[in-house]
Amino acid sequence: MADKIAIVGCGLVGRAWAIVFARAGHAVALHDPVAGALDNALALIEATLPELERNDLLRGSTAAEVREHLAAVGDLEAALAEAVHVQESAPENPEVKRALWAELDRLAPSAAVIASSTSAIPASAFTESLGHRGRCLVAHPINPPHLVPLVELVPAPWTDADVVARTRALMAAVGQAPITLNREIDGFVANRMQVALMQEAYRLVEEGICGVGDVDTAIAEGIGLRWSFIGPFEVGDLNAPDGIADYCRRFSDMFYEIARTQTEARRQSPETIAEFERQRRALLAADQLGERSRWRDRRLMELAVWKTKVARGDLE
Amino acid sequence: MADKIAIVGCGLVGRAWAIVFARAGHAVALHDPVAGALDNALALIEATLPELERNDLLRGSTAAEVREHLAAVGDLEAALAEAVHVQESAPENPEVKRALWAELDRLAPSAAVIASSTSAIPASAFTESLGHRGRCLVAHPINPPHLVPLVELVPAPWTDADVVARTRALMAAVGQAPITLNREIDGFVANRMQVALMQEAYRLVEEGICGVGDVDTAIAEGIGLRWSFIGPFEVGDLNAPDGIADYCRRFSDMFYEIARTQTEARRQSPETIAEFERQRRALLAADQLGERSRWRDRRLMELAVWKTKVARGDLE
Repeated sequence: MADKIAIVGCGLVGRAWAIVFARAGHAVALHDPVAGALDNALALIEATLPELERNDLLRGSTAAEVREHLAAVGDLEAALAEAVHVQESAPENPEVKRALWAELDRLAPSAAVIASSTSAIPASAFTESLGHRGRCLVAHPINPPHLVPLVELVPAPWTDADVVARTRALMAAVGQAPITLNREIDGFVANRMQVALMQEAYRLVEEGICGVGDVDTAIAEGIGLRWSFIGPFEVGDLNAPDGIADYCRRFSDMFYEIARTQTEARRQSPETIAEFERQRRALLAADQLGERSRWRDRRLMELAVWKTKVARGDLE
Repeated sequence: MADKIAIVGCGLVGRAWAIVFARAGHAVALHDPVAGALDNALALIEATLPELERNDLLRGSTAAEVREHLAAVGDLEAALAEAVHVQESAPENPEVKRALWAELDRLAPSAAVIASSTSAIPASAFTESLGHRGRCLVAHPINPPHLVPLVELVPAPWTDADVVARTRALMAAVGQAPITLNREIDGFVANRMQVALMQEAYRLVEEGICGVGDVDTAIAEGIGLRWSFIGPFEVGDLNAPDGIADYCRRFSDMFYEIARTQTEARRQSPETIAEFERQRRALLAADQLGERSRWRDRRLMELAVWKTKVARGDLE
């Protein structure tokens, strides 16, 4: 069995991380300080594994084999013992993180890397005063990480380069898609691009160009399809005969003219938010949100199956 | 057989439109003034149809049946005769469009709608002086429209509302996903969102946050997966317990802080473009661009198959 991984915080994100590491053969210790959280987490993971096995998303293991890699450990020090990597997925609160990370740094083996799943708090905000702060960084997933492979590695100014490299290698080895940021930046990379797109989506509706449903159709039935398998640079690289430089030379003046009209950062007013809500509820009743979320999760699973086949070359 | 459609301009876009209308049962007349273009277009369509039939993307028809709906017509007036809808896919040049549209408006049956596939030129730039300008609009597809359903309908200020409604109904009936813009705007809707995202992608590399390959991974292995089946409003609607208003209230301050750092419109310098090119060529050699484009097209076809099944409810 491969090296031990400790999962600290077993909500939606921590549970999915446990699956990621366990299906890759790691011994996984799950820890959560909230009463009942561990039993709940294991029950939910057990309920998820058979569907993943049926879809061949357990890297060749059975659900039972993956389950055997998982251990609920009520004592934090025992959960951390001998771990090579600690993945923290606690609530998104800097004070909570500061207190917890002081404990993690004190109790984790000196050779262990400690990574946070935070989507919004830079590691520098909760690791500065730690004794071994060089081993601390952000490893931010997209939910749920057992279906969506991206992991953003964001070092604090004091994170050791070797720690970043080891974490990137670990994430790649377990089948995730790690990227490395050279320094901290608000929103990291994926959410910064999402925010840029959302700001324009919101503007288009606020300005009365079209409705919420039509904006979504423009993505989900149009420009968004390719983004499920190639990013914006490769899109451009393949959209001009001689690649990305050719693409930039052909279109950058046009893009600049559009970008010049997208420079206002806006907060949405309560009236605008109410209008978004009104239009969405006309498309999906409030009592259907849960069922639609499960529909979305099934689609993400189907995409994960497809992308696994593409990556293996099964579909060439 | 359903109403006749005329395709004027039979390059990449016009050919794909011909497939869209013919597989839905329409009689399609193809016209192109360039010598040899019509023969070439029919040959390329014939080469494409069997793969679409194998993937059940011909709405139940065979390749041979779809082929029977297609007629190459060298005379423009004959091509337009009795058409209910004219889809123009000529070069992206306002002068070319102005001259061509004067002909189209003169020769097309008075009841025919005339739509342009242009991605960048508003209909007001080439229809203002036409005798029947109320029947003219933009119907902008994403390439290739036989695999990507989005069609952006963009009326000029003088386009009849009924013409927009009829075109939307036609596009929906042939299986496309039409959206309606209430007025002309540079870049329409899909490309405006694409530009907003690309500007941030370019900034992240220019600022040294991360490399071209990692930015692309952030989309293609992360935030982009969901955009192949739900748009940004629905993403938000499903990402907070009580829907989009809840989502905006939770996250809009954070989004605003990020958006405030994304307000500079930039042209890429020659040095930046050279750096994009250098990084892309390290990921994909120039002589592999063609093969990779075919790889992309196979992936788009697989997504089209999947989305057809999702829309039919085959995967619930």
